[in-house]
Amino acid sequence: MYYAAGSGIPEIKTILSGFVIHGYLGGRVLFTKAVGLALSVASGLSLGKEGPFVHIASCIGNIVSRVHSKYENNEAKRREILSAACAAGVAVAFGAPIGGTLFSLEEVSYFFPPKVMWRSFFCAMIAAITLKMLDPFGTGKLVLFQVTYDRDWHAYELLPFLLLGVFGGVYGAYFSKLNFRWSRDVRNATWLKNYPVAEVLLVTFVTTLLCFLNPYTRMGGTELVYNLFAECRTGSGNDHSGLCVLDPGSFIAVWPIIQSILVAMIVKGALTIVTFGIKVPAGIFIPTLGVGACAGRVLGIAMQYFQYNYPDIRLFQVCDGDLDCIIPGLYAMVGAAAALSGVTRTTVSLAVIMFELTDTLTYAVPVMLSVLVAKTVADALEPKGIYDLVIDLSQLPYLDSKHEYLWGNLQVGDVTARDVQVIRLDRTNTVKSLRDQLQEVFRSGNDDSGFPILRKDDDHDDMRLVGYIGANELEHALSIVADDAEAEIHFTSTYGHQPMASSSLSSLLDGTQGYSQDPFDFSIYMDQAPLTMQSNSPLELVHQIFVKLGARYVIITDTDGFYEGVIDKKTWLAFLSDLEEKS
Amino acid sequence: MYYAAGSGIPEIKTILSGFVIHGYLGGRVLFTKAVGLALSVASGLSLGKEGPFVHIASCIGNIVSRVHSKYENNEAKRREILSAACAAGVAVAFGAPIGGTLFSLEEVSYFFPPKVMWRSFFCAMIAAITLKMLDPFGTGKLVLFQVTYDRDWHAYELLPFLLLGVFGGVYGAYFSKLNFRWSRDVRNATWLKNYPVAEVLLVTFVTTLLCFLNPYTRMGGTELVYNLFAECRTGSGNDHSGLCVLDPGSFIAVWPIIQSILVAMIVKGALTIVTFGIKVPAGIFIPTLGVGACAGRVLGIAMQYFQYNYPDIRLFQVCDGDLDCIIPGLYAMVGAAAALSGVTRTTVSLAVIMFELTDTLTYAVPVMLSVLVAKTVADALEPKGIYDLVIDLSQLPYLDSKHEYLWGNLQVGDVTARDVQVIRLDRTNTVKSLRDQLQEVFRSGNDDSGFPILRKDDDHDDMRLVGYIGANELEHALSIVADDAEAEIHFTSTYGHQPMASSSLSSLLDGTQGYSQDPFDFSIYMDQAPLTMQSNSPLELVHQIFVKLGARYVIITDTDGFYEGVIDKKTWLAFLSDLEEKS
Repeated sequence: MYYAAGSGIPEIKTILSGFVIHGYLGGRVLFTKAVGLALSVASGLSLGKEGPFVHIASCIGNIVSRVHSKYENNEAKRREILSAACAAGVAVAFGAPIGGTLFSLEEVSYFFPPKVMWRSFFCAMIAAITLKMLDPFGTGKLVLFQVTYDRDWHAYELLPFLLLGVFGGVYGAYFSKLNFRWSRDVRNATWLKNYPVAEVLLVTFVTTLLCFLNPYTRMGGTELVYNLFAECRTGSGNDHSGLCVLDPGSFIAVWPIIQSILVAMIVKGALTIVTFGIKVPAGIFIPTLGVGACAGRVLGIAMQYFQYNYPDIRLFQVCDGDLDCIIPGLYAMVGAAAALSGVTRTTVSLAVIMFELTDTLTYAVPVMLSVLVAKTVADALEPKGIYDLVIDLSQLPYLDSKHEYLWGNLQVGDVTARDVQVIRLDRTNTVKSLRDQLQEVFRSGNDDSGFPILRKDDDHDDMRLVGYIGANELEHALSIVADDAEAEIHFTSTYGHQPMASSSLSSLLDGTQGYSQDPFDFSIYMDQAPLTMQSNSPLELVHQIFVKLGARYVIITDTDGFYEGVIDKKTWLAFLSDLEEKS
Repeated sequence: MYYAAGSGIPEIKTILSGFVIHGYLGGRVLFTKAVGLALSVASGLSLGKEGPFVHIASCIGNIVSRVHSKYENNEAKRREILSAACAAGVAVAFGAPIGGTLFSLEEVSYFFPPKVMWRSFFCAMIAAITLKMLDPFGTGKLVLFQVTYDRDWHAYELLPFLLLGVFGGVYGAYFSKLNFRWSRDVRNATWLKNYPVAEVLLVTFVTTLLCFLNPYTRMGGTELVYNLFAECRTGSGNDHSGLCVLDPGSFIAVWPIIQSILVAMIVKGALTIVTFGIKVPAGIFIPTLGVGACAGRVLGIAMQYFQYNYPDIRLFQVCDGDLDCIIPGLYAMVGAAAALSGVTRTTVSLAVIMFELTDTLTYAVPVMLSVLVAKTVADALEPKGIYDLVIDLSQLPYLDSKHEYLWGNLQVGDVTARDVQVIRLDRTNTVKSLRDQLQEVFRSGNDDSGFPILRKDDDHDDMRLVGYIGANELEHALSIVADDAEAEIHFTSTYGHQPMASSSLSSLLDGTQGYSQDPFDFSIYMDQAPLTMQSNSPLELVHQIFVKLGARYVIITDTDGFYEGVIDKKTWLAFLSDLEEKS
């Protein structure tokens, strides 16, 4: 069950963009992933649970959608359920229903009309209420990392927060790059490729060794983040695993703690690079929060040290000599948000998730500032986030709607595939001849392409378009009449106007098809009005039609309306990645 | 300056959907609206400031976009700025940067790619930080209605919260309906129509009279909401204008307060119905929050009364005899959220705005529950929210992307306009003949339509499409050669392939046009590859092309590729409203 490995978010992004990965959201994957996640989180590896939660929720959504034929037969409706399930998955992973909805909107979903937004919100809220009622942590709270301080931040602190944003951006960019390179050049290029179990054991072994270095690496990821976010209260007796410095002004007291946290940060970061991508269910949020929180806490403790020793310099004058002026926990929170923003490149949803995680809005501005700085810095260093890199690595057919392309002097004609198999109505099409054509297409690996159906123009040698039939529809139609190999197939209905069988838009795919009396009349399986464009149309328009309308193919005609060729989604994706490599 | 009146949000929605309202976002409107808003808010009328703030921010965004030619000449880019400005407007109205971004996404904007989302977020955050630095209220806080209680809510309270949700939904639906009817049947149908100043004076007079009824109506809207949300602390000395009942268990003490609040609620609600829509800058948020908060507070006080008198019944057993178990301020908060959701029909953005307004996430679940219930109930009673009703009333050409239409047996051919003016290349087109055709189109009021350019097919009597020229482009082109009335115009370039002059997608409109040597060659003004569809295409596809691609027109051809007619956006809108009336 390789499908149960990894985060799941890149694959679900791809599925929501309109592709089908058979069995990825089935019951067996659900079971394997749920059991595997429990084991992998319990193992103490450097991994989180939000991605697998999203995957598990999507599996459940997919299975539930089979109950009702409205959802089973309509891909678009099913994807709406998956968007909502994704929101619910994040909602229970972090107790963050609004953040989950926005994460589904910002990162995962492709089409997200307002109707889906509030249904997702509803779904996420019910999930959060259920979690609260079940109360698995025994705290009676949804909030994972509740912060207890409520002192306001000061304007001068925006400078360290900005620094944390830059750190988050640099970390995010290099983490993504290194993880991508490790996956490409080590995991997939050496003997590790064929022994994923050995790799898991090896990583676990290294993790075990390194984590005994110090108390912070020994801790579970969630516990570490909780302690790093916490405030030290004088006299509370809880020193949060030694993170509370008894004498924040003395170098002897501060230095060992800073050293330990730095070691924990580097070990965590390095382990996450090799862990994310191994063949166990693994999320990226919690380890990233941990690394960012370590960096923030170090900066916070350092700031506190300077404030204790030089309380009178200009910077600290607003504190008025108050020695509790700087909260290291707040710095940890800001650092965590920045690191996560650098890795995932989400902004609004991440800020909301941080507020819901910590149950406070007092520090909205610092968190938002660091998130935006981190995103900007990371985008400058490495344009793709971790999920997009995984999509690249797995070569998933994902059409990125966010990227802007420069088309230069290229024209639609340069992309059009002219040598595709076509069905010509001026020739005789038998069951056998069509089956041969179908075999040809399957042999070349284009299972999801199809055949333009052409007729000869009365007065010219050129061809005119009659319709389009998908390879899968043709296979289905042929399987019905398989016994009659020599029978002739016709594509023009003899029963007048028939309801559309399929359309070039996957979102319009309709399950209920008109039943034709004549099994050799394939016109009901045909898209009678495929989306057509002239060969002198701008490429941006083609792109918009694929991205915004979710089209699977576009027929290209010349300016006189004669058939010229086809651009299907795969051709377009290949063209785009060519274009990107060249620039 | 009629443009400065009203909320502004419906008009900005329309502008963002792709239409141009000349002068609506200009400097003069900005000035009038800003001054008018200050006066109208200060007048004590029952109105808010969020809509006008959005309008003012959009004016500024529009004026700023003139500085750079990249934004001035590209409508799509300018609309991105307007989306961000809209987020900033809400952000400063409520100190809610995230809520503002989501409001822009959920309610106002039409196209909202992720890139725009985080730019809007950035813009809103800078606006909020600036507001905090300027600190106009002298509190040092962004938060308008900070709540000070932090006791958790109880599961049994979900029942009253649900009731508040139902109230909010019913109020929202009937408020919208009554406001719509008042505007249509009274304001626009009687003598009031011609004397807007008299109407304003009359409403002000009635407001003055009614508001002296009791202390809660006399208060400003913001102050009222603040007091209704507040918690009563024993011994704090602040009784929040009498809202704090000294003896919550005694009927004599409770009844007069409930009566006063109910009167305030009815007066506020009635006044808002006649006020929203008069010719002064006026928002809808604050009055609606006030009405909802009144209802919530009444329910809260009533619940408290019952708990004091019957502390032992099953329902109140979780309170364990604690008499401070019920917080009437929380009920007010939930009621306010429900009412606002009923009126505006926003969900996620509204919930976030409420959290940011009150600076607490402890009551996330109650607020979200009531918002969802209110939205569901209101949608059932009246499918359109207040902004959509205003759009209907003003007959703004807004294409609703949220509505789902049932196409029935209708076909593209039933919508196609066949009797449009066309330019035929087999006839001689002179400057004069084209000018006459243009005049014809302008006379019929279709300023933003255009002309399909056709040529005769060599072998048939039917016409083939060559291109499309917009009326505005043609007017511009003719104005250059106006002196040569008899000169012949040609539409086929003599200089080989020219860059596209315009495209059927407004988002692709490009300001930099190739310069042609020959002033009588109009081919550079022509859309050489207009979006074309066959007459047997499904209507949903046409709808998607208008909604998702933002097309301004689609050319319809028959199945042989011959020209049949045009569907432009206005035709499509008229067809949709026909369709809606019939069903």
